[in-house]
Amino acid sequence: MNNYKFTISYDGSRYYGWEHQPGKDLTIQGKIETVLARMTGSDSVDVISAGRTDAGVHALALTANARLNTDLSPQQIRDYMNRYLPEDICIRDVRIASDKFHARYNCIGKTYRYTCYIGQLKPVFDRKYVYVLDKMPDVEKMREAAGYLTGKHDFASFCGNVHMKKSTVRTLDTIDIRVSGDYLTFTYHGDGFLRSMVRILTGTLLEVGWGKRTPESMPSLFHEKRRALAGFTVPAKGLCLIQDDYNRG
Amino acid sequence: MNNYKFTISYDGSRYYGWEHQPGKDLTIQGKIETVLARMTGSDSVDVISAGRTDAGVHALALTANARLNTDLSPQQIRDYMNRYLPEDICIRDVRIASDKFHARYNCIGKTYRYTCYIGQLKPVFDRKYVYVLDKMPDVEKMREAAGYLTGKHDFASFCGNVHMKKSTVRTLDTIDIRVSGDYLTFTYHGDGFLRSMVRILTGTLLEVGWGKRTPESMPSLFHEKRRALAGFTVPAKGLCLIQDDYNRG
Repeated sequence: MNNYKFTISYDGSRYYGWEHQPGKDLTIQGKIETVLARMTGSDSVDVISAGRTDAGVHALALTANARLNTDLSPQQIRDYMNRYLPEDICIRDVRIASDKFHARYNCIGKTYRYTCYIGQLKPVFDRKYVYVLDKMPDVEKMREAAGYLTGKHDFASFCGNVHMKKSTVRTLDTIDIRVSGDYLTFTYHGDGFLRSMVRILTGTLLEVGWGKRTPESMPSLFHEKRRALAGFTVPAKGLCLIQDDYNRG
Repeated sequence: MNNYKFTISYDGSRYYGWEHQPGKDLTIQGKIETVLARMTGSDSVDVISAGRTDAGVHALALTANARLNTDLSPQQIRDYMNRYLPEDICIRDVRIASDKFHARYNCIGKTYRYTCYIGQLKPVFDRKYVYVLDKMPDVEKMREAAGYLTGKHDFASFCGNVHMKKSTVRTLDTIDIRVSGDYLTFTYHGDGFLRSMVRILTGTLLEVGWGKRTPESMPSLFHEKRRALAGFTVPAKGLCLIQDDYNRG
């Protein structure tokens, strides 16, 4: 029985998110566990991911692990999974990890990217991966606001789960805001993210960019811990998990 | 009553093709004519396109024209259409054309591109726009074969419509075959294309690249005029109409 580490891409458009939920069978975790159970002839397989993406959110390289009883090589496991998984889920890599490796507990950082479309025309071919903005926000103002949001803070106002009982303190290292052609992207790196945090941060920054809030008003969002004070939650389809970080080994 | 020229992009994935057909209401022409009839308060509007794309084929910039009775400016027409058309159809441009302009009769050339995916991993995010190849074809052999296929020929063997009664002679100016990263593209320019011609040409070239045919066997396909002699028809999803050409005016 080896512990395997997986790197997974998916188009989250038609899924209820990563995590399997009672009564909702269209989840990425559910699809992967079903294929692995079939491959190993087990009743069930538990796949642990670095985190749970919400309904409609995509992933370029999500990390997961699972203990499997199989004689197949990592390459054979990858090929088997890609053959039986639907075309919107791709296993990029499978390798044997140390027995202690845990995709969630060992994850030390994550990168998320949120993509807005700022072109004149409707984005026909990548419409499922972008949020279309009607009005161009002021990028310099958003960068100024981002300066207030990075660092170690209590992000309770940016948490989509109002029943969150655990700590809502996180360290947000960087928010990189770029315009490239018809796209405006927000790339976030931090040690962990609360539910919907990236989408609420992006909505708040856009409201700054549109002049509805000032950069200087950002610190007050940390002091008062109320979701209603922060900005709107941008749509899931523009969000993509880019990478999960681990220490070597 | 002006004659308007339209430039249109669409993701053809969910459509029965450009042309409206009895009993099949999901066509690009049907969607556009419905919106224009509503905009002008007419019972019906006829939209003429440079050509008809098959079910599942995409377009980056298809040209069409229609005579409309409206007080709206071209920019207003474009905005109206984009608002009411589904998100997989985009009107890129609307302008007033000369009264005689006819998108089909005046078209003097077309560019089509066929995209194959040759990467190791499943193409999760652009899977609807590429044909995944399991085996890399020999590009030099395909280029050699393409040299025999360009020029003015009777393309009857490359015509998907076996009941074609009109001339099947066409001039194929260029076939440009390129590898770029995980993609292999075939770009065709000619004065006109028969039904499925680009897809049959691509299938034939791939068979050359896979060693099932020789470049030197290409001319025989023109002499004997039988569809069965040419290669397989590659899937529609990899095909995109890139541009229609017109003389200035």
